[in-house]
Amino acid sequence: MSDDQFTHLDSSGQAQMVDVTDKAVTQRVAVAQARVRMQPATLAMIQDQRHPKGDVLATARIAGIQAAKKTWDLIPLCHPLMLTKVTVNIEPEGDDALRIETLCKLSGTTGVEMEALTAASVAALTLYDMCKAVDRGMVIESVCLLEKQGGRSGHYQRVNEQEEK
Amino acid sequence: MSDDQFTHLDSSGQAQMVDVTDKAVTQRVAVAQARVRMQPATLAMIQDQRHPKGDVLATARIAGIQAAKKTWDLIPLCHPLMLTKVTVNIEPEGDDALRIETLCKLSGTTGVEMEALTAASVAALTLYDMCKAVDRGMVIESVCLLEKQGGRSGHYQRVNEQEEK
Amino acid sequence: MSDDQFTHLDSSGQAQMVDVTDKAVTQRVAVAQARVRMQPATLAMIQDQRHPKGDVLATARIAGIQAAKKTWDLIPLCHPLMLTKVTVNIEPEGDDALRIETLCKLSGTTGVEMEALTAASVAALTLYDMCKAVDRGMVIESVCLLEKQGGRSGHYQRVNEQEEK
Amino acid sequence: MSDDQFTHLDSSGQAQMVDVTDKAVTQRVAVAQARVRMQPATLAMIQDQRHPKGDVLATARIAGIQAAKKTWDLIPLCHPLMLTKVTVNIEPEGDDALRIETLCKLSGTTGVEMEALTAASVAALTLYDMCKAVDRGMVIESVCLLEKQGGRSGHYQRVNEQEEK
Amino acid sequence: MSDDQFTHLDSSGQAQMVDVTDKAVTQRVAVAQARVRMQPATLAMIQDQRHPKGDVLATARIAGIQAAKKTWDLIPLCHPLMLTKVTVNIEPEGDDALRIETLCKLSGTTGVEMEALTAASVAALTLYDMCKAVDRGMVIESVCLLEKQGGRSGHYQRVNEQEEK
Amino acid sequence: MSDDQFTHLDSSGQAQMVDVTDKAVTQRVAVAQARVRMQPATLAMIQDQRHPKGDVLATARIAGIQAAKKTWDLIPLCHPLMLTKVTVNIEPEGDDALRIETLCKLSGTTGVEMEALTAASVAALTLYDMCKAVDRGMVIESVCLLEKQGGRSGHYQRVNEQEEK
Repeated sequence: MSDDQFTHLDSSGQAQMVDVTDKAVTQRVAVAQARVRMQPATLAMIQDQRHPKGDVLATARIAGIQAAKKTWDLIPLCHPLMLTKVTVNIEPEGDDALRIETLCKLSGTTGVEMEALTAASVAALTLYDMCKAVDRGMVIESVCLLEKQGGRSGHYQRVNEQEEK
Repeated sequence: MSDDQFTHLDSSGQAQMVDVTDKAVTQRVAVAQARVRMQPATLAMIQDQRHPKGDVLATARIAGIQAAKKTWDLIPLCHPLMLTKVTVNIEPEGDDALRIETLCKLSGTTGVEMEALTAASVAALTLYDMCKAVDRGMVIESVCLLEKQGGRSGHYQRVNEQEEK
Repeated sequence: MSDDQFTHLDSSGQAQMVDVTDKAVTQRVAVAQARVRMQPATLAMIQDQRHPKGDVLATARIAGIQAAKKTWDLIPLCHPLMLTKVTVNIEPEGDDALRIETLCKLSGTTGVEMEALTAASVAALTLYDMCKAVDRGMVIESVCLLEKQGGRSGHYQRVNEQEEK
Repeated sequence: MSDDQFTHLDSSGQAQMVDVTDKAVTQRVAVAQARVRMQPATLAMIQDQRHPKGDVLATARIAGIQAAKKTWDLIPLCHPLMLTKVTVNIEPEGDDALRIETLCKLSGTTGVEMEALTAASVAALTLYDMCKAVDRGMVIESVCLLEKQGGRSGHYQRVNEQEEK
Repeated sequence: MSDDQFTHLDSSGQAQMVDVTDKAVTQRVAVAQARVRMQPATLAMIQDQRHPKGDVLATARIAGIQAAKKTWDLIPLCHPLMLTKVTVNIEPEGDDALRIETLCKLSGTTGVEMEALTAASVAALTLYDMCKAVDRGMVIESVCLLEKQGGRSGHYQRVNEQEEK
Repeated sequence: MSDDQFTHLDSSGQAQMVDVTDKAVTQRVAVAQARVRMQPATLAMIQDQRHPKGDVLATARIAGIQAAKKTWDLIPLCHPLMLTKVTVNIEPEGDDALRIETLCKLSGTTGVEMEALTAASVAALTLYDMCKAVDRGMVIESVCLLEKQGGRSGHYQRVNEQEEK
């Protein structure tokens, strides 16, 4: 626990968009993840699709990238910012999950962890949407920040993989 | 597994927005959830906030409601639709989690499960954003559909709570 | 005062998007207004512009129409809806004001007064923006609902013009 | 009157987004206000709500903050920009009004008065929406710029409070 | 020429969103196209991409589908509407062009030709964006309506393919 | 052909938003065009409108300017950026066409050609929308980049006007 107050509330508890006008412009990177747990048969279907043309994963990647750019509109107290890089990678994990890993980057005065987390969440929701006709019971799990660089709070790296389960 | 094809892909594997023009207009309801796992001290801080003024939970509820209305813009192959009810409830669960439960409803030709799941995810992301200065290690878990009514596929109710862990 | 509760709060005071699923589909119309008070010289400049080419008023009209369509995105608890008519009229009033009158219409389950009020407000803000380099002291006044038809609450017509001052 | 032309029109009267590429990057602040005039009984109901949980004011504050971020999308000739601070305060005024005061800030090449005015207007519209079931006759008044710092035109402060009535 | 007035202007020439409240609800379909003319080497590169993984065409298809849903926001006087089907197909044409064909459909009171044309245009722009690093001289051509069904004006089919050159 | 790879795909062919974090901040300008080919009678009607008040061209200009600002949202892999100037000019060409020329400008790390092309396309689509009731056969042609300054790739100027036919 790095601090002892909610920065998005003023002293009377009201929501505010905090002042970052004078924060240092540094290069900031955040890496986040999400997992979509599904039936093994569902994963097999996606992987079959994958080789020849497979718009399933492409659609989810693009949805994640676009969502990163809309984070300021989705999360009420996020600052608008100009991302200079976004990537969304999706890989199978075991026989019953897809793991999404996102990276966001910019040179600016605020961190980009919300952008990376939003990209991961929306890519996961898109996978759910693409596959829900065959597997309604899929679960999105382990949406968390893996790493964060830049800014006053320094380098953060998630230590305990178990934590995220 | 209720079906054996990805409805969002055509026969050559290309993404499409499926034709719902002639589907029956019925009343459709979906209930979804998300959990935000946090340090007990973080939950305690939110609960202290809660009584006097506490914009933390209000901000997350509103973000969830607004996100439900933008689902068609976030999830590429979702149909635009006119939600007639959205609720977002957030309750503590044990001493280290907040549980979000969302409900979406409309009278139309497509289900609203993506809207309920999107509302839950964005409410969870907003809680993360509001609290990240004090607890960067929070994890969003168990984002899943709990119930779905209306439409050709009938009533769905998640049976096994363990599944969603 | 037509009612004794805030419909957008549930019984515990939490924001919600109220259920309109079962409300009657009727034809609904709302008329709203806004005034922009300015220096007489500013109004004269706009009127000079007006005759030959004058994008000032056209820009404000279009901004108002577009804002009506985005009301569900701007006002957190508004329902998404499909407007079937929007008009924005702007006329000089005396020698120091422009008066905006908007009309919104649809056939649906919710009223359109927020759409008409939002169109009037954004048209007024756009006029401010277009003219602020010459008159920073302009004031937007008297943004109010003039008339409302359709729905359970019946016909509303603002009786007392003074009220709106 | 600080200037004698409409900067948003070119020499033939056509709308344009003016060139700010070479303007100085300075710290810019704008403060704006709006008033919502209502029945005393309506204000009393909001204030009763306020103490225990009261999402009315929180919803309006959040709507105002989010609207500030969308100003470039609402007002056709506004430049996109990256606000570094937004606050929305809402206080009772007398027994029949709520007064909204907004502040926007950034370090950039254009002023932020439209952002502050848009935040105030949308917060006011949201209050109207939250309370319209009990008081349809509410009026939004006195939407104006109170103060502006930064940029070539220097410090502006509204002198005559009466003006804004 | 099917009519002798601009429906989007009122009798004094001012822009308006026309009243479709009382128009018949019929099933409406529109088919549109766009061509992207490029260097043969560029087309060859896209086709090489296509087989193994090829996000180029998938990205353009998704961008077109999403743009169709935003037409009401892009084209000022378009009505908001709820598309029930959107498809975007992209095929090579000769050795130096990609041809995009889009189809939009709904059951409603307004035609969907603007949605089909917008989908085609944005898919074409996305192809340009994906390939501009290798071929800046690409040209988007022949964006036109091919067919339109439903509504008072009946069935329209483009007769003369030359016309669209 | 200035390069031999698609920058928007990673080495395995997956869509990504490329890293521009460390690119030089330079002043960037792009000029693009589009033509709308129509019946001579349609052009004559627009020109009649033009003199007295004529919202046709004003609406298209504004739609183009606003679309430039939304390019990042329409084109999936475009970076968000802060345009500092946008102009949209529309002129008759011969007796059967309107030619749109757009200019976008900023000081930043990425080019603005997609913004200029998007502005031209959406202005053209808006003209189509305004006039479609009188001339459904209009065609949008010759959407292309005319000039580009700034950035590593230097000055580009379209040499051969014929190319764009």
